[in-house]
Amino acid sequence: MLGLMQDWPLTVDKILDHAKAWHGETEVVSRSVEGPIVRTTYAAIHERAKRLSNALKGLGVQPGDRVATLAWNTGRHVEAWYGIMGIGAVCHTLNPRLFEDQLCYIINHAEDKVLFTDLTFVPVLLKNRERMPTVKQVVVMTDREGMKGVDYPGALCFEDLVEQNSPDVAWGGFDENTAAGLCYTSGTTGNPKGVLYSHRSNFLHTLVTMGSDVLGISARDVILPVVPMFHANAWGIAFSAPAVGAKLVMPGQKLDGASVHELIESEGVTFSAAVPTVWQMLLTHLRETKGRLTTLKRVVIGGSAVPEAIVRGFRDEFGVDVTHAWGMTETSPLGTQATPNARIDRLDAEEQLRFKLKQGRAPLGIEMKLVDDANQRLPHDGSTFGKLKVKGPFVVGEYFKGDGGDILDEEGFFDTGDVATIDADGFMQITDRAKDVIKSGGEWISSIEIENIAVGHPKALLCAVIGAAHPKWDERPVLLVKLKDGETATKEEFLAHLEGKIAKWWTPDDVVFVDDIPLGATGKIDKKLIRQRMEGYVLPTAKEKATA
Amino acid sequence: MLGLMQDWPLTVDKILDHAKAWHGETEVVSRSVEGPIVRTTYAAIHERAKRLSNALKGLGVQPGDRVATLAWNTGRHVEAWYGIMGIGAVCHTLNPRLFEDQLCYIINHAEDKVLFTDLTFVPVLLKNRERMPTVKQVVVMTDREGMKGVDYPGALCFEDLVEQNSPDVAWGGFDENTAAGLCYTSGTTGNPKGVLYSHRSNFLHTLVTMGSDVLGISARDVILPVVPMFHANAWGIAFSAPAVGAKLVMPGQKLDGASVHELIESEGVTFSAAVPTVWQMLLTHLRETKGRLTTLKRVVIGGSAVPEAIVRGFRDEFGVDVTHAWGMTETSPLGTQATPNARIDRLDAEEQLRFKLKQGRAPLGIEMKLVDDANQRLPHDGSTFGKLKVKGPFVVGEYFKGDGGDILDEEGFFDTGDVATIDADGFMQITDRAKDVIKSGGEWISSIEIENIAVGHPKALLCAVIGAAHPKWDERPVLLVKLKDGETATKEEFLAHLEGKIAKWWTPDDVVFVDDIPLGATGKIDKKLIRQRMEGYVLPTAKEKATA
Repeated sequence: MLGLMQDWPLTVDKILDHAKAWHGETEVVSRSVEGPIVRTTYAAIHERAKRLSNALKGLGVQPGDRVATLAWNTGRHVEAWYGIMGIGAVCHTLNPRLFEDQLCYIINHAEDKVLFTDLTFVPVLLKNRERMPTVKQVVVMTDREGMKGVDYPGALCFEDLVEQNSPDVAWGGFDENTAAGLCYTSGTTGNPKGVLYSHRSNFLHTLVTMGSDVLGISARDVILPVVPMFHANAWGIAFSAPAVGAKLVMPGQKLDGASVHELIESEGVTFSAAVPTVWQMLLTHLRETKGRLTTLKRVVIGGSAVPEAIVRGFRDEFGVDVTHAWGMTETSPLGTQATPNARIDRLDAEEQLRFKLKQGRAPLGIEMKLVDDANQRLPHDGSTFGKLKVKGPFVVGEYFKGDGGDILDEEGFFDTGDVATIDADGFMQITDRAKDVIKSGGEWISSIEIENIAVGHPKALLCAVIGAAHPKWDERPVLLVKLKDGETATKEEFLAHLEGKIAKWWTPDDVVFVDDIPLGATGKIDKKLIRQRMEGYVLPTAKEKATA
Repeated sequence: MLGLMQDWPLTVDKILDHAKAWHGETEVVSRSVEGPIVRTTYAAIHERAKRLSNALKGLGVQPGDRVATLAWNTGRHVEAWYGIMGIGAVCHTLNPRLFEDQLCYIINHAEDKVLFTDLTFVPVLLKNRERMPTVKQVVVMTDREGMKGVDYPGALCFEDLVEQNSPDVAWGGFDENTAAGLCYTSGTTGNPKGVLYSHRSNFLHTLVTMGSDVLGISARDVILPVVPMFHANAWGIAFSAPAVGAKLVMPGQKLDGASVHELIESEGVTFSAAVPTVWQMLLTHLRETKGRLTTLKRVVIGGSAVPEAIVRGFRDEFGVDVTHAWGMTETSPLGTQATPNARIDRLDAEEQLRFKLKQGRAPLGIEMKLVDDANQRLPHDGSTFGKLKVKGPFVVGEYFKGDGGDILDEEGFFDTGDVATIDADGFMQITDRAKDVIKSGGEWISSIEIENIAVGHPKALLCAVIGAAHPKWDERPVLLVKLKDGETATKEEFLAHLEGKIAKWWTPDDVVFVDDIPLGATGKIDKKLIRQRMEGYVLPTAKEKATA
């Protein structure tokens, strides 16, 4: 027997309809790519997005067609998203930090038909124009004045399209499982793979992240998503901010400490979200300028592990609460959030810190398990490492065009590629990427844990730990160190720094000083490249063994 | 093109699975019907609910069969809900405050097969046993000790069923549109009609109400739902509390001020929800005993309009924030909530109060419109009255067995039967029930607004306003007053009390003193009965007119 409630498909156009109807005059403020601060409202964004929908229809875009965006966080980018998704086309967000080869690969793989770009990226598109045969039309997200410097043949002007088209168009009305968005993984192993979000998955992710224990945002918030819409959907904020009717502040391309601080103070930002690097830059700027944060209450940090110094800095110097979040392109992206439960909430601030540094717990809608190599569940004791697997209505089921084959286990869980622990409070902590974990004598050593401690050495700028082949133990850790400018150091100094802070058997067998530790497109250490560079390296302990 | 995210049906069993997995040791504390406080956990409730599922299967319950509950808010009631819904049967909550005829009508209409009852209600069931032929089995929610006084032939003992059955049973795995719950409207006009909730509608209602601007509850809350599970699903708290992992405190049958206060203080309740009467009793108790509220932070009030004195009392005497909510059986039930937006949040407390007394704004998932008799949309100016219509994934589509026919308009909206205004901030305020609004000379007069002012007269215990036929104006208002014990008053005193507080043309044409103002099963004034009793009444102004 089926229930008799209304049939109301979960399509994301309804989110902007809601914002227009009930929060129409709420502001969306952008630092435009052209420079000035631009102010608009949800009602105006709604109308302009509808005009864009008609423009896309005029360009021959059909439901299911991929329309790409290569753009910063601005009101125009929001308009493009809803204009594309509202008519059942697929919004494919391109990450401008990818290498040009990857960018071309992704555009071709997605078969993008129309591409929206900010002025910033016109040169790179022009350079690679011949390599993107599927792209029939480029739209530059600027006005006629901005177009004057654009030399891309046949490029259209965003503001012209808005002006020339009617806002009279029907949105939605299709199956809620219709594809809405496409985002490729950063592809540290093999080619990037596409995650094809549905309207339903985006809508459910929005509802879940609106919860008090996830983003916990409200109509009283002023939200600054520094996390880019081009990478993991700005953690869904382009959906959740209009969903709650919060004022939205878009930083454009200026993500340095001074620019972010200026926006926070001038617009009264109460809530922000970004990767640790952005917050580190902000803290440094604030300290240098003796700046204050008079309105900011909460920041959510994800993308990589949050350094303790950032949590303390925000808390002790600025009275801002930091929440650690974890997720990935494949989880839409928010998976867990380190929001205290009742027990942890009763602990003192120092004890709570231990949990704030973990990636956190799963909201309703994310199932999570830890398993060993045989896919057997492991205990949630806070110390047992295992592969982290997740399941839920906004977790990937398969990659676009079937890349990577069958990616779910027999219980329907997706392997995140992370190695983690889960404690008795349900707090998950990533200890490593599965491919980076060092398997020594059948036990696992976390490369990240060693790195985090090693980088605390006053002479270290960057540290990386990889596993090197060992005849007896299979693998043993090697620490690579890039020193700060002008510093000199010895292997012994670094080993002494680690002593007592990690298990003795985790101590690296060698320390190698390097002049470069390469970072990937998302700012994380590129261990694949490091391993390539270290090919031919032999552990001193392996040599001893071999010659013994 | 369809998205490629996981297929994860929204079935409510997953809510309790989540609570068990991540908040398994979180307590559920009940004031049992037998008397003592009983403590359990989500993990234990999960296991016991699974045992009940097997018990129900053993009793021949099939997917789609209706299983009724006639019970107070307790942990056992929660177990029954999930045990029933988990296997695709339909949990039909019976309201013990209904008249026996209505109760029998509803049980027969629903064709309930098994009926769970608290000890409290065994006598009424026994008395009406012959009138409920579909009920094959009665289960009394008590232990073997409690069964000693039960003389219902063949009644089963809840704890026996739990003990005798295995927890090994599969939950869910069916279409998310499968019926999960059934609740009948109070039926002030005609027979009660059934609202058949689906797993999807309950799940989406849960996610929406978890939002910061709706219930805003978290794993740090201790939640006391005084609102009964038997009426409008305890505002969904039996779903949303486990969904966030909050400690749940169930009041059983004792809803008086002293009992509620004792539970709040002994269990550290931070959040509660109830109708105004309950809060009035609590405030009275606190004032009489000089009691304090040391942990309570927020109460949500709905079911009928919140008197200003309650909001002020909680705020000024106890530092507790009151949020007004509106909904109905047909909206699962939460429709709107008077949570401030950014603009209102900046007003001072007195100005905010004006909005706190409104029924509030719609979250994402509730579409709302005001229309006139011709179904044309009316402006949101805060003063224009109109019929309130709603739409959304947890709003009724049709009543059980098609009762009432086609209940949606051409845009898919459901007519709430309320008359309301909506202001520029999107705050809706109920001004009357459509059938109670007084249509005088083509304009509408709110009976409720006059009642609320009239009842502020120091001699008044209860007031009701109805429309009486008038030859010139169609209808004119009549005020019925039930005085406090020992008081005497005149018509002129009451009219003078209203003067200047309502528009002159709203002034009742007559004041009638009565010894009874009847209340319906949900505690609201029964105007249908009042109108029956007033049959034959002629307005003095109508007589004047007639004899003029």
